[in-house]
Amino acid sequence: GPLGAQGVVDLIAPESARADLVALANTLEKLPLSEEELQWVHVLAEGWATPLEGFMSEDQFLQSLHYEHVVVNGEFVPMPVPIVKACSAEEKKKVEGKEQIALTLPSGEPIAIMSKPEVYEHRKEERAGRTFGITEKGHPYIKLIMDSGDFLVGGKLQVIKPIKYDDGMDEWRLTPTALKAKFEELGADAVFVFQLRNPVHNGHALLMQDTAEKLKAKGYKKPVLWLSPLGGWTKDDDVPLGTRMAQHHAIIKNGVFGETPVVLAIFPSPMLYAGPREVQWHAYSRLNGGATHYIVGRDPAGMKHPVHGEDLYHMWHGQTMLQMAPGLQK
Amino acid sequence: GPLGAQGVVDLIAPESARADLVALANTLEKLPLSEEELQWVHVLAEGWATPLEGFMSEDQFLQSLHYEHVVVNGEFVPMPVPIVKACSAEEKKKVEGKEQIALTLPSGEPIAIMSKPEVYEHRKEERAGRTFGITEKGHPYIKLIMDSGDFLVGGKLQVIKPIKYDDGMDEWRLTPTALKAKFEELGADAVFVFQLRNPVHNGHALLMQDTAEKLKAKGYKKPVLWLSPLGGWTKDDDVPLGTRMAQHHAIIKNGVFGETPVVLAIFPSPMLYAGPREVQWHAYSRLNGGATHYIVGRDPAGMKHPVHGEDLYHMWHGQTMLQMAPGLQK
Repeated sequence: GPLGAQGVVDLIAPESARADLVALANTLEKLPLSEEELQWVHVLAEGWATPLEGFMSEDQFLQSLHYEHVVVNGEFVPMPVPIVKACSAEEKKKVEGKEQIALTLPSGEPIAIMSKPEVYEHRKEERAGRTFGITEKGHPYIKLIMDSGDFLVGGKLQVIKPIKYDDGMDEWRLTPTALKAKFEELGADAVFVFQLRNPVHNGHALLMQDTAEKLKAKGYKKPVLWLSPLGGWTKDDDVPLGTRMAQHHAIIKNGVFGETPVVLAIFPSPMLYAGPREVQWHAYSRLNGGATHYIVGRDPAGMKHPVHGEDLYHMWHGQTMLQMAPGLQK
Repeated sequence: GPLGAQGVVDLIAPESARADLVALANTLEKLPLSEEELQWVHVLAEGWATPLEGFMSEDQFLQSLHYEHVVVNGEFVPMPVPIVKACSAEEKKKVEGKEQIALTLPSGEPIAIMSKPEVYEHRKEERAGRTFGITEKGHPYIKLIMDSGDFLVGGKLQVIKPIKYDDGMDEWRLTPTALKAKFEELGADAVFVFQLRNPVHNGHALLMQDTAEKLKAKGYKKPVLWLSPLGGWTKDDDVPLGTRMAQHHAIIKNGVFGETPVVLAIFPSPMLYAGPREVQWHAYSRLNGGATHYIVGRDPAGMKHPVHGEDLYHMWHGQTMLQMAPGLQK
């Protein structure tokens, strides 16, 4: 597989190859990416979902749904959430059996080439039930699933160029490879991650300060804080990324972290609100970016049940699953 | 753990200890077992669910739901279905914090002692969604879940005596340990399992003959057929065990298996109708009984969707999951 020097998948074509890839893509059948699917291309391209080299095949989809891991040479590797691309019955006809197809931005511009697309049934109810433990369409990510195509299309990707959003925040979207280089440059012997999809409040700041102290007490000389807000799709009533980033910049300037070096970098994944599964995804993806420690609080990636309004997940199940997860115990 | 000579858990007390255990049980708080829970005690007692030594703790329940495996020393061991006992809020008050409690037969007679009962929330919707991929109460096993208590109680078991049903079929209920001894006695160098919860038809018989031939072509000298009808709870419109056993006896007498030795033994598990998960349970439990090969056909452990009537599971997903399952590839 295309593992880079840092041990993570890198699907982005070298600059010299891009013109040829665009020319090739323009000769191929094209599938448009939804906003959320484009974010998954971003996630895949940079190796956050190592060892995946593209949207999941049916086998990988089943492994993720059933085991929350993919099976690699008979061993489990964490992969707690399905990373899939939907297509319609009509699109299926166009792409099935092709050697290569192109995936396009909302503008129509090709952004990736998929090899040997494998089209399979999108079993939406089962996907929702297994991923979330519920099947209610009132759940925002389940709604995305139910509204998407009746088939899924998997296959390895070559990504034509880095994904950019031109929203003034691209400089904070660091790849796992860039992050690892940065942590090395800083001389970090521990990297502890704090992720939020909500604004940082004072309790969070204290938690982060306290974690640095605890790591030092354990003998780490230079713990680095990786402040890692989720940057992808979120439900309508979550605080927008721009606002959260402004607040993150402000608290860093205010020096609330004392001597602890802070690296701020947006995590490109969409949000699933999948509780215990998703916290494992958040931790695993950060391991791929060089994290050594992941802070997890109460009810991570939780929300209210869309029908009866109680917490959708047991408030400590996310933490329990993370502590028990083989492959996430570094 | 209480691993017997044959490498499987054996929770059944020696005969000499039984009178004392009954006396002890009569001093303890008692929880009645449902028909289905008694079958799980049977399954656990004989080691079909090795390494489990009793009803699942909350950690084991989460591991099974999320990973279809339990985590033992950081490694995954197949455990694709939750094996749990329900209790009510009232029962919770009685048993919580006790050192030991007794589990009783419908007659009130104690059958097992549970140590350090751990009572935890029975998250029914999530359990159904993750196990079956649906949450519809029209599914017969989901109905059992929804109708049971709001809590689960886990803990190690000591089983006072072997489970008997006095229905004229107990002699066919062989333990994994007894089966392994039998296969050894027969000089089997391969044991291939055929399980049915329906009557055997001619196609099945041909499949079994063909499997014996294929194993011989692979170099096995003495393949033994383990005919293993499921004996536990099934939905109302399935063919009753007595009828199926009569038919199994008839085809064995008729000699449809030729020279291949046949061992007929009832598998005590209840039926879940959980498709791809359940076929893994059926195969794993048979590995614990000495199987080397497991025959799986189209749509194993499937049924119709309770609302729209289509097949609940993709017809080949059961087979695919079984082929991909680490720990089931002997």
